[in-house]
Amino acid sequence: MKNRVITISREFGSGGRTIGRRVAEKLGIPCYDSELIQQVAEKSGFSENYIKDAGEYAPGGFLASALSHRASGPNNADYLWKIQYNIITELAEEGPCVIVGRCADYILRDKADCLKVFIHADLAFRVERIVKEYGEREESPEQRLRDKDKRRAAYHRFYTNMKWGHAQNYDLTLNSGTLGIDKCVEIIEGLY
Amino acid sequence: MKNRVITISREFGSGGRTIGRRVAEKLGIPCYDSELIQQVAEKSGFSENYIKDAGEYAPGGFLASALSHRASGPNNADYLWKIQYNIITELAEEGPCVIVGRCADYILRDKADCLKVFIHADLAFRVERIVKEYGEREESPEQRLRDKDKRRAAYHRFYTNMKWGHAQNYDLTLNSGTLGIDKCVEIIEGLY
Repeated sequence: MKNRVITISREFGSGGRTIGRRVAEKLGIPCYDSELIQQVAEKSGFSENYIKDAGEYAPGGFLASALSHRASGPNNADYLWKIQYNIITELAEEGPCVIVGRCADYILRDKADCLKVFIHADLAFRVERIVKEYGEREESPEQRLRDKDKRRAAYHRFYTNMKWGHAQNYDLTLNSGTLGIDKCVEIIEGLY
Repeated sequence: MKNRVITISREFGSGGRTIGRRVAEKLGIPCYDSELIQQVAEKSGFSENYIKDAGEYAPGGFLASALSHRASGPNNADYLWKIQYNIITELAEEGPCVIVGRCADYILRDKADCLKVFIHADLAFRVERIVKEYGEREESPEQRLRDKDKRRAAYHRFYTNMKWGHAQNYDLTLNSGTLGIDKCVEIIEGLY
């Protein structure tokens, strides 16, 4: 397999973004993560914060979308999805890169030279990481993790109809908690 | 992580058994697969074929078990499960080894020094492999694969209440179709 593009989906706090950056650095190729959000912001006219949030909520919530948005045609989230879709497709065509999150695994699903990775870890490992990385908040770290996971899974499901975290959707999935971040970087690098 | 035991769950035809054997060979440790079935047969008095089949059917089927077996206490499958549980626990205590299938991932879930692997591949890859390995049959290879997958998932679910093939249940999952059998062997060996 020629892996020109590596997509990394990840549970919040699992270190997926760190792993993506380190793999890209080692391979000397670009890593798109927040850069992607910036590009979507530029092309859409929305703020970066809005786009960041939109990437973690299934549009409108179930009731709202059943009752209004979907019936009245595409909404903001659909518009952003389209822009994101185009940007990711273009980036993948431009050259080798690592893309973190934003459903890139689905968007590039028919590209044979794409290595699809999912990173996860158990709650305890992620709790420790997010408190260290992002500091304390009012809600408990466990609650923050559960909320984030739920939103990401719902967003992914809404636009891709694929089960998030289901092994069959990926070339490999890694538990960063038991294997360690370094080992994950090494395995992905070795597959490129 | 000290990986004294490697458990390999796999989709039928994905090459999981071959991968397990080759990893064990490279590491110079035993691989239990059909040997396990033999041991269960010896301890239970049932035939090897009966045990092989029992490992792929959730006991009794839904209706049968709802109506009779479960209500009237443990059945043959539960009895076999108990024997299998004990054998796997003992093997894992004896020393380093690879164990293929038989819900070993679940049985050893609380052992910290156990590397839990899931191997899968897309239908086309597995169809080609099973026709080559096991020859043609009356049903189409696609049908055989779907049946086997369904049975293994149901059996696993029945005894473990875990979702089969869900990334979060494993340390790593590998797509043998896209990565290749050799690469899978190499990654697992490298983690030991």
